[in-house]
Amino acid sequence: MSEPLFLQACERQPVERTPVWMMRQAGRYLPEYREVRKQADFLTMCRTPELAAEVTLQPIHRFGFDAAVIFSDILIPLEPLGFGVVFGEKGPRITRPVRSAGDVPAGVPDDFAERVAFVYRTIELVRDALSAEIPIIGFAGAPFTLASYLIEGGGSKSFAETKTFFYHQPEAAHRLLGLLADLVARHLSNQVRAGARAVQLFDSWAGVLSEAEYRVWALPYVRRILSKLAEAQVPRILFTLNAGHLFGALAEVEAEVLGIDWRTPMGQAFDLLGDRFALQGNLDPTVLLGTPEQVIAETRQVLNGVAGRPGHIMNLGHGVLPPTPIANVEAFVRTVREFKGDDQ
Amino acid sequence: MSEPLFLQACERQPVERTPVWMMRQAGRYLPEYREVRKQADFLTMCRTPELAAEVTLQPIHRFGFDAAVIFSDILIPLEPLGFGVVFGEKGPRITRPVRSAGDVPAGVPDDFAERVAFVYRTIELVRDALSAEIPIIGFAGAPFTLASYLIEGGGSKSFAETKTFFYHQPEAAHRLLGLLADLVARHLSNQVRAGARAVQLFDSWAGVLSEAEYRVWALPYVRRILSKLAEAQVPRILFTLNAGHLFGALAEVEAEVLGIDWRTPMGQAFDLLGDRFALQGNLDPTVLLGTPEQVIAETRQVLNGVAGRPGHIMNLGHGVLPPTPIANVEAFVRTVREFKGDDQ
Repeated sequence: MSEPLFLQACERQPVERTPVWMMRQAGRYLPEYREVRKQADFLTMCRTPELAAEVTLQPIHRFGFDAAVIFSDILIPLEPLGFGVVFGEKGPRITRPVRSAGDVPAGVPDDFAERVAFVYRTIELVRDALSAEIPIIGFAGAPFTLASYLIEGGGSKSFAETKTFFYHQPEAAHRLLGLLADLVARHLSNQVRAGARAVQLFDSWAGVLSEAEYRVWALPYVRRILSKLAEAQVPRILFTLNAGHLFGALAEVEAEVLGIDWRTPMGQAFDLLGDRFALQGNLDPTVLLGTPEQVIAETRQVLNGVAGRPGHIMNLGHGVLPPTPIANVEAFVRTVREFKGDDQ
Repeated sequence: MSEPLFLQACERQPVERTPVWMMRQAGRYLPEYREVRKQADFLTMCRTPELAAEVTLQPIHRFGFDAAVIFSDILIPLEPLGFGVVFGEKGPRITRPVRSAGDVPAGVPDDFAERVAFVYRTIELVRDALSAEIPIIGFAGAPFTLASYLIEGGGSKSFAETKTFFYHQPEAAHRLLGLLADLVARHLSNQVRAGARAVQLFDSWAGVLSEAEYRVWALPYVRRILSKLAEAQVPRILFTLNAGHLFGALAEVEAEVLGIDWRTPMGQAFDLLGDRFALQGNLDPTVLLGTPEQVIAETRQVLNGVAGRPGHIMNLGHGVLPPTPIANVEAFVRTVREFKGDDQ
């Protein structure tokens, strides 16, 4: 049996067609997901392997994606550190956020793996239910992004609390970031042990930093995680949003795949980064709110931009949006599967 | 009497020192602003020329900035179109947002200027109170950014409603954007007539668009406004946030000054755009949450990056944040005023 398409592309091998999956593909845009969600709240779904596995599999069954990203949340591994995580109408909220050096936990607790065992159990259930051709992607948040949630107490626009903490308590900030790097490396290694065949690190908010700041507060911790994961021998995907100004720094990371948001045309991203990395992306998720004709045209444009260079994994430039119509996801996937280049 | 420093820099003339002001300098970080704000809510302050003029002047008196940006809001000119604007704890909200083609107003009402006369009266009061050496900057939101508020009903992260409207009702969307361009051009012309000696157009959310989308939904309307303002013969400043990927398109606009956020090092921005434009920016506003030593070091770094090239107006990369300490703004302004280059 040949290696799964998705893994071939991660390794920059030539593939018979471009593999495709979507960030947040196990999510609210799916009616069958909303059915499950009626019976359990978001956190309960994350913590119940049978439910998490069920919704992980839903988009695979419906659309035939080439990889199954596990249903979970980047804030899940923060709970064993002693932080309360609440998912409300207005997005996630951290109870008792980090406001002083004393709020930084001493270390990763010994029973960390047991406390989030439901994530690993979910992966085992998905692995058992799924053909070996469809690899499972495990994931975690990167330290800067996780720290910003912990310090802001939730999402933010200005990251004022985070930067105030960093500037006034740099030692505690670096201690927190280092701790999160250790935590995330363990969480991802555990996911690989449970059956994940690739891991994705989400540094979704790193794009608010200038390159100089990124090199202080984000990059060293991303590198520490990626380095610890080298022995797991699975493709390591680093996703950053809104990070065109960080490409110089990103070019230095030890990852196999970089996730690219929709702002940079994929051909340009390949010119800048394609000789070292496979690249994942990057249809603008809002295009999936348009007409099927627009979805087809824009999807073809991304594929034509790549021009058949090896190492492309088709995806959106960010997570699929809840109001996305199913017919548009179908058009997206079908266009990728049937694509033979512009001139055919 | 020589021309004010700020206007000299807008014209890319050599200046004896770099002029400096801050976006949102008339704002909540100032204790004397918060005193006024105790007596009147935000909208009442905007609509009461005596109060708006008072807070416009506060940062000039305290810090000696080289330009006075008028206290107002980009959503103010939307009210005469029939939209309700509410400023709450969670940011601005539009009552009865645009959800269908029928919600797009027919045109700019004849009495538009009378309905927002308080803005122009504020400018007159500031002009009368201020030395001619300190020019007044008028401002408005750009059509894409204003349309996104109108369609989302407030701020947004994904701009899902806006994009859905654009894709499914492109004709109505272009009608709305064209109407907003006419409205904004009139509002800025009126501000110049009242005494503004420069105008700034804020396209704060344009950075969510790819360059291809920017060229469809934002750029044509920005150009229409800038073109209508040519006869006003004042420097036209275009500010975009998070727009490094749009520099190719921005290079084509007929503006005298481009505002650059903190993500692009200022020297790099000058290399890319400095032969056609004066450039305004770009200290990261979160640096003003650090220590005065950090503020001084980072401010000097921006100035050194520019390396004395003509056409630099010092500013932040976005609006000053409410928790900013006064001592840091003082350190910022003093560093700019005393700067003689790295080697002195």
